[in-house]
Amino acid sequence: MDLDRLITGIRDGDRRALARAITLVESGRADHRAQATQLLDAVTDPERQAIRIGLSGTPGVGKSTFTEAFGLMLTGQGLRVAVLAVDPSSARSGGSILGDKTRMEQLSRDPNAFIRPSPSQTELGGVARRTREVIALAEAAGFDVVIVETVGVGQSETLVAQMTDIFTLLLAPGGGDELQGVKRGIMEIADLILVNKADGEMKAQAGRTCADYAGALRLFRKRPGDPEDFPKALTVSAVTGDGIATAWDEMRTLVAHRRASGQFDKTRARQNRHWFDDAVRHGILRHLGSDPETRARMEELGAAVAAGDAAPSAAADRMLSLLFGGDRPD
Amino acid sequence: MDLDRLITGIRDGDRRALARAITLVESGRADHRAQATQLLDAVTDPERQAIRIGLSGTPGVGKSTFTEAFGLMLTGQGLRVAVLAVDPSSARSGGSILGDKTRMEQLSRDPNAFIRPSPSQTELGGVARRTREVIALAEAAGFDVVIVETVGVGQSETLVAQMTDIFTLLLAPGGGDELQGVKRGIMEIADLILVNKADGEMKAQAGRTCADYAGALRLFRKRPGDPEDFPKALTVSAVTGDGIATAWDEMRTLVAHRRASGQFDKTRARQNRHWFDDAVRHGILRHLGSDPETRARMEELGAAVAAGDAAPSAAADRMLSLLFGGDRPD
Repeated sequence: MDLDRLITGIRDGDRRALARAITLVESGRADHRAQATQLLDAVTDPERQAIRIGLSGTPGVGKSTFTEAFGLMLTGQGLRVAVLAVDPSSARSGGSILGDKTRMEQLSRDPNAFIRPSPSQTELGGVARRTREVIALAEAAGFDVVIVETVGVGQSETLVAQMTDIFTLLLAPGGGDELQGVKRGIMEIADLILVNKADGEMKAQAGRTCADYAGALRLFRKRPGDPEDFPKALTVSAVTGDGIATAWDEMRTLVAHRRASGQFDKTRARQNRHWFDDAVRHGILRHLGSDPETRARMEELGAAVAAGDAAPSAAADRMLSLLFGGDRPD
Repeated sequence: MDLDRLITGIRDGDRRALARAITLVESGRADHRAQATQLLDAVTDPERQAIRIGLSGTPGVGKSTFTEAFGLMLTGQGLRVAVLAVDPSSARSGGSILGDKTRMEQLSRDPNAFIRPSPSQTELGGVARRTREVIALAEAAGFDVVIVETVGVGQSETLVAQMTDIFTLLLAPGGGDELQGVKRGIMEIADLILVNKADGEMKAQAGRTCADYAGALRLFRKRPGDPEDFPKALTVSAVTGDGIATAWDEMRTLVAHRRASGQFDKTRARQNRHWFDDAVRHGILRHLGSDPETRARMEELGAAVAAGDAAPSAAADRMLSLLFGGDRPD
């Protein structure tokens, strides 16, 4: 692989170079990993900054339809849009390339759009780490908006919130979170709740659902530094397009406010530091886990702890003694 | 220190032995740590199981008054009650022994009660790890109910939720979470919301606040396996005692339900495993951090990452190469 050509291609915003670079970043091979590291370092440019939008919603709320309508509106304004996915289920199924591109047929043909499904890895943390790198690549390739889709059922939302600037929850009209299968805690991290399908006979119901959520949001404390009226609930229709421009306006308002207050940069710095720490921690544990004896002992002690037969800290001390000898860290 | 006498004392439920054991567990000295590990291992007994209740609420909601009334009701039923605190601010101030005991004057003189303030450590994670061990000691000493108090303003709630069976949020009448300073996300982990001060001229307002929260709770998905009507919101008065017996009934109902379904044991096993993993991870990082050169390099790379000058994963790979040589973990 010609790394220099890839670097130039990304800097030039070439979509094929971006696709190849993503494949490299997602590869599990050690030599690819070394190249990916070099690549990421070379293209990292603090001057190129997309708006990163996390978009969560359970299957059936119309996430793909919304993303297509939202994406086409953005490309219609001359903006370049990348759509990525973090799908916890793809850890098992191996992604859904065909599915994503089929569902966003028009957007996938748009020269200013780039759609990439979730990488297939066996572990959600690994998927998240790679997705974060893919965001960085899309940003380096000059995309203005990066949408990171996730299915609102697992812990993937927290991970996506840690790599985006704005977190949006897409809901269908009617029912509480329970009926919609939204996991406890997701509503709490949302900057914007969009109640989709506000069209036809669902319109009135969408308005009521939106009002319910707006009321519930008032019970939560706003994020420090955010405008008084955020987080916000709005109705949208991916079919008629109603509310989609407003949603984008609200996102830009929030980003502009956070940029002016310095909160935007602060959050990004915190996120970067988080992923650095996470990668170092993960790397250390992986290194230790590569020793079969260490791993077996860890599992054995972990099972005793789970069964209540050993105190967690006592078992941990034994594990640490095994790793580092007589030295007993607190 | 005579460890055998301490072990016997704890098994006999002796409060002075418990107090001394806690001091040992909280000590930062390496030889104390080794003894604490031995002690925890010796007294761990899966047969002795308290109901562990997490209690969160911002200053001013009447947490101490509630705990005193609640604790006295329990000791009045012949139950033994331990009250522990995780106070993020004590990481700076060094705890508030006098404060806690003064505020719960009657309970602190009750022979069936044991009150222990937050350990003073410089790091919340360290406070949490020690508190978890103190819970284990109180459980081994035969306490029937262990109440872990925390101030609802930081990340301490998530930590406390990871070490208790039931999480209770205490609120004052009026205003949303915002007015009460409750952090986003806390309401989400509550099994029970208690609106305190439902007495005198505040009574009607407390009822309205309770109804608001009951409505908001319906928007969250219940925990898998929990009864349909949980999480729940109730009014209580720490002054008149109204609702306190009901709150305890609800807690027992929830615990009985979770015990019958196996969820109770499953959650404890998961929590134990979590604290084991946490202690091992922490120990490894601490061991690495004890090397000044490693620490300096980690800070240097972390700062570059936060500033956007280096890609998090690339910086992490460099850190890992430094630690383990040419080996590059994913």
